[in-house]
Amino acid sequence: MRAVLPVWVCVNLGGEAEAAFDFAVALELLHNASVVLDDIEDGDHVRRGRPAVWSQWGTSHAITAGTTLIFEALVSLGRARSMASVLGAMATDLVRLTEGQTMDVQLAAGALAPSRSTWMDMARGKTGMFFSTCLRAGVAAAHGDDAELIEAAATYGADIGLLFQVQDDLLDLTGNKGRDLRGADLIEGKPSFPMLWAYEHASLAALAPLQEVMHLPREQRTPEKVAAAVDVLHAVGAVDATARWLGDAKRAVERHPLTRALPGWAERILAPVAHCLP
Amino acid sequence: MRAVLPVWVCVNLGGEAEAAFDFAVALELLHNASVVLDDIEDGDHVRRGRPAVWSQWGTSHAITAGTTLIFEALVSLGRARSMASVLGAMATDLVRLTEGQTMDVQLAAGALAPSRSTWMDMARGKTGMFFSTCLRAGVAAAHGDDAELIEAAATYGADIGLLFQVQDDLLDLTGNKGRDLRGADLIEGKPSFPMLWAYEHASLAALAPLQEVMHLPREQRTPEKVAAAVDVLHAVGAVDATARWLGDAKRAVERHPLTRALPGWAERILAPVAHCLP
Repeated sequence: MRAVLPVWVCVNLGGEAEAAFDFAVALELLHNASVVLDDIEDGDHVRRGRPAVWSQWGTSHAITAGTTLIFEALVSLGRARSMASVLGAMATDLVRLTEGQTMDVQLAAGALAPSRSTWMDMARGKTGMFFSTCLRAGVAAAHGDDAELIEAAATYGADIGLLFQVQDDLLDLTGNKGRDLRGADLIEGKPSFPMLWAYEHASLAALAPLQEVMHLPREQRTPEKVAAAVDVLHAVGAVDATARWLGDAKRAVERHPLTRALPGWAERILAPVAHCLP
Repeated sequence: MRAVLPVWVCVNLGGEAEAAFDFAVALELLHNASVVLDDIEDGDHVRRGRPAVWSQWGTSHAITAGTTLIFEALVSLGRARSMASVLGAMATDLVRLTEGQTMDVQLAAGALAPSRSTWMDMARGKTGMFFSTCLRAGVAAAHGDDAELIEAAATYGADIGLLFQVQDDLLDLTGNKGRDLRGADLIEGKPSFPMLWAYEHASLAALAPLQEVMHLPREQRTPEKVAAAVDVLHAVGAVDATARWLGDAKRAVERHPLTRALPGWAERILAPVAHCLP
């Protein structure tokens, strides 16, 4: 999906699809690098139904594979038209992406105080910056060094990334994520948009079952306790508030002049939670 | 040292030092990224007398720190003059570097058959490619897109990298490396240039004490056994042959037209083993 974005953006803005191919390859390789490295960081043994690289070949080879994928991405970027006008900004996006990943780990570990604005910064980094850099690439492929358009597209991409992340959080609570269990984020101890909305708006007493789960060691977060915490998020209105936020954000994205770069994209991203939106 | 190379090359080829600064910063950041990631891969707890990043902050943060350093390097590359003419080639060097690192691990693990030509490929990748990319950067900063000069300088840089690696191997056996012990490579189970020369030229019987050490588990490679193996490398002439190879390589580098890019560099690299050279 990520590799398609720069091509789609390029074509929708009047460029030739081929002009975006080197960018697309670079972004696909970068995404795969992050997948290989994230699985080591998260200790995940399975990826796309097969053993994770580190799980099969060991951490050393997986780290080398990850960095090799990053450098192969650069080889492709080096071939991309108008690359020079966006390389620095794309790299800055990627730095912010790793900052977002670090904030994500710190939030889950309790090393960073959870608040909605901290969460938004984290999500804008972790999820938004990759979309931002995909959009920059697409605009550069179509319009070379139009700095103003590139910046506007980058912001638009980050907004869509945030939409994607909040959608993912909502889906995790409404139970249509294709997993056996609702509340996977709660099991992981990851603060989510609805959770942080609840911290801001609900009483401590109402939040007790949620707080209990978040303070337990992971192995003691039983399905029953997680289900009770999910129920709390519904009861205090956090799920509805998240759906409302998404509805508003969707309309803002659709009204944005750059919708022409990615027509129908917000709708597509929000399809899994469409039935919950106001 | 690595960050100085592009600046030195640039100035010696008639450019302004400042033109190479963004490249220099990028290469220093890339080198630091590789240090942070290599320490995880090698399980080294100490770096430059202080705890390694992964040892102090954990593997997850260290991997993120390593990739962030790579992306910060790209931010700097994005600012560098004539960057567009060398990015792809520099990235290709970096891919070959990681291939060399993988070969190094495979050689130490016995997963790759040891031969002198395999070792040369490994060393040219692991050590040569970083020098190669430093030289490309320096030439690009001085002369923009002179593709022929950039390629010649890259090859010259890789040759110097190989010189550096063989020098390091010789130093490990002649005992002036500032470590307590000669034969650190033997303790690590890493095939070296002198070792592979010996495999090619000496009888199996003469190599018995060396083979014994290489086949022992690491914890059984005692100082006495390693000393005996080092003595074998001296006795079969491998140390002298390595010194001769280095002497020849040094003269070739000094006769090369691109010596003007790095005058005195081969001499400087070989200073620690100067007393052994023919």
